[in-house]
Amino acid sequence: MKIEMICTGEEVLSGQIVDTNAAWVANTLMEQGYELSRKTTVGDRMDDLVTAFRHSAERADLVIVNGGLGPTSDDLSAEAAAMALGEPVVMFEQWRAVMEQMFSSRGRVMTPSNLKQAMLPRSAVVVDNPVGTACGFRVRLGKAWLFFTPGVPHELFRMVNEQLLPFLRDLDPRQGGSVSVHKLLTLGQAESAMANDIEALTVPCPEGVTVGYRASMPHIEVKLFRRSAVDQDQWQAYVGAVRAALGDSLVAENQPVLANEIHRLLTEQGATLALAESCTGGMIADQLVTLAGSSAYLQGSLVTYSNEAKQICCGVKASTLQRHGAVSLPTVVEMAEGARARLHSDYGVSVSGIAGPEGGTDDKPVGTVCFCVSGPAGSWSQTLAFGSGANRSRTLIRKLSAAVALDMLRRMLLGQPVIADYPFLKRVDRLPV
Amino acid sequence: MKIEMICTGEEVLSGQIVDTNAAWVANTLMEQGYELSRKTTVGDRMDDLVTAFRHSAERADLVIVNGGLGPTSDDLSAEAAAMALGEPVVMFEQWRAVMEQMFSSRGRVMTPSNLKQAMLPRSAVVVDNPVGTACGFRVRLGKAWLFFTPGVPHELFRMVNEQLLPFLRDLDPRQGGSVSVHKLLTLGQAESAMANDIEALTVPCPEGVTVGYRASMPHIEVKLFRRSAVDQDQWQAYVGAVRAALGDSLVAENQPVLANEIHRLLTEQGATLALAESCTGGMIADQLVTLAGSSAYLQGSLVTYSNEAKQICCGVKASTLQRHGAVSLPTVVEMAEGARARLHSDYGVSVSGIAGPEGGTDDKPVGTVCFCVSGPAGSWSQTLAFGSGANRSRTLIRKLSAAVALDMLRRMLLGQPVIADYPFLKRVDRLPV
Repeated sequence: MKIEMICTGEEVLSGQIVDTNAAWVANTLMEQGYELSRKTTVGDRMDDLVTAFRHSAERADLVIVNGGLGPTSDDLSAEAAAMALGEPVVMFEQWRAVMEQMFSSRGRVMTPSNLKQAMLPRSAVVVDNPVGTACGFRVRLGKAWLFFTPGVPHELFRMVNEQLLPFLRDLDPRQGGSVSVHKLLTLGQAESAMANDIEALTVPCPEGVTVGYRASMPHIEVKLFRRSAVDQDQWQAYVGAVRAALGDSLVAENQPVLANEIHRLLTEQGATLALAESCTGGMIADQLVTLAGSSAYLQGSLVTYSNEAKQICCGVKASTLQRHGAVSLPTVVEMAEGARARLHSDYGVSVSGIAGPEGGTDDKPVGTVCFCVSGPAGSWSQTLAFGSGANRSRTLIRKLSAAVALDMLRRMLLGQPVIADYPFLKRVDRLPV
Repeated sequence: MKIEMICTGEEVLSGQIVDTNAAWVANTLMEQGYELSRKTTVGDRMDDLVTAFRHSAERADLVIVNGGLGPTSDDLSAEAAAMALGEPVVMFEQWRAVMEQMFSSRGRVMTPSNLKQAMLPRSAVVVDNPVGTACGFRVRLGKAWLFFTPGVPHELFRMVNEQLLPFLRDLDPRQGGSVSVHKLLTLGQAESAMANDIEALTVPCPEGVTVGYRASMPHIEVKLFRRSAVDQDQWQAYVGAVRAALGDSLVAENQPVLANEIHRLLTEQGATLALAESCTGGMIADQLVTLAGSSAYLQGSLVTYSNEAKQICCGVKASTLQRHGAVSLPTVVEMAEGARARLHSDYGVSVSGIAGPEGGTDDKPVGTVCFCVSGPAGSWSQTLAFGSGANRSRTLIRKLSAAVALDMLRRMLLGQPVIADYPFLKRVDRLPV
């Protein structure tokens, strides 16, 4: 079955909005075993819309159209569909009643402009939208189904899950509903090197399993897509072999970022955490506070950007800063231990580094970052050299720093050696040696 | 002149990568006065590529193709272009020599697979890529120019700026180079309300000026596009009227986010800052530390997530927390003044609130957030009720909180009344009253 998608709207076409709806739909379809063969983006001009509908309908079995269902004059999807079909738009009283009900339940009167949202091509089948005034609909154009969805993301997501996917499975029961994805989150290894290692595995990749890679810096996600027919034992053996091939680079499974894994572990273990951040500047705390429930374990983060703040807040000694500098193992050890002691936490984590673009020296170039994790069993610290330049921006250096710090904590929480060997990240120092 | 864009690559089509290249190109073109009329995304299948090239070339004068210029077997753009043209690919010795030079200057030997990157359609004109092995090229197909660009973002950006835009201006000198954008960053007003106010202005919108809106939560950006022919006096009068219509909602001009404006002001004034963050959890510090040079003014941020941390780090009194709670004006005042005093800063800013989804009470529902800004002239604090629900997620409440805190500081730095009236944000309390 051939599926295309058409995204409408000037803001999407002109780059004012990055088209995350399309990526979400494509990704959701793929995880259900369906593939898009083409995506077209057109603006709000009637001719362009009609042409796009007709051309896609000639090529595809299903065309998912997104956007243009609103109440304003530049929302043209229904009219353009009618024009492509050569039929009029008519009032769908059923949907008009639903809209009136929505408005009156909120104590408001429906405006005349909303009436437009119940005007659909005569042959349309209405698709329910339980969370908005823009109903979806589908029409048959030639041999293809055109399926119209709203542009508002949460309305789209719900309609795809509740209406489009079941419709798709009815259309083509052989595909779909049968693919699951296992996601391996990695840190500190190059995509090409991982691909080489995984391709070279002696354990065979079972038929029905495909491997994909997605860079989401500072992580690369290895995705294993599996059709339901795959033998369970072969699958387990293969996943095990992939895990082994990834080694220390594998930092979490089925978690979008490392912070989620830390959140899970600290919550499970009932342990508390204090942070002392310099170059990450609050980023680590922010990643944890994003997750509801982080107040159960996060005491706080001392974002000690100046040397003075490091002394006042964490108790770093002036002599340490003088002798070794702010970016040094003795400083990060005092930061982590100081934050842990002052905030009475089970664990303390610290980061101090040179994120650039200025501030580097011959001795400590931009990209030099020191880390320490301190817990009941002691303190471990290391210095990594991330390098700098076009591919290692200030932002990437800071994101890498947050990820390495969280990974050190993760390893301590799991009772593993705290300091890992990431093939693609260069270590210049560590304590204990 | 009609311009289309074709994006290639399975990862883009399948939603593994959000297509930010296309948004960047469209946006860059628009700021230069050129518009895209259509964007097509296709995968790595030869047939689909050839068809897409041919169809776009029938409709457009210029087709910008992105991606598929790499050395691997799924990079098919040059071959597909040749097929669409009905001509062979041939070795371009000129580019082969450039590549060999690149490799040898890095002390490496060029791999045979890279040779493919010098194989272009016979009629191609090479377009230089000073930062990568994938050269661009352009070919004439029918009446259209097909302009091929690399998928690696920084290579693309450079080629567009240095090669594509000059080429475009040669093609159509009447357009381009003549549109500038003035961006007004707003906070706390609805897009529809702003649009109504701006449409209702008595000062006329000069011909050649168009108004656009872009939501980038928690901000909405009002964009004024201006062709060079616009009369300067009319323009100034109009911008002044728009500013007045936006009122307190206007928080910065020609800055992407509020943090850049704070960065500019604190740097200019040589003043220092200390933060005390609870529900924002390091987000404010992170937004400032993202900007190189922030170490000049940012002493640090005390991310005091627990009540204990608020007492230990900021010196909030236990009795204040007991009597008024962590989300209260007395607490945020002690937080801001404590951070300012302890870190010896000119200014102190604090935030404490209930970001949800749990933790709300009848008295202080989810979305209740308290702010304080403290400086040489005194302390101002307020409580806002952002509300909660589908449109006010934990993340949005936290982003709004960071923006309001920065805006209070901005107003203090500019000598304006610290507490503003945002039409769309509800205030429930303030000090001084």
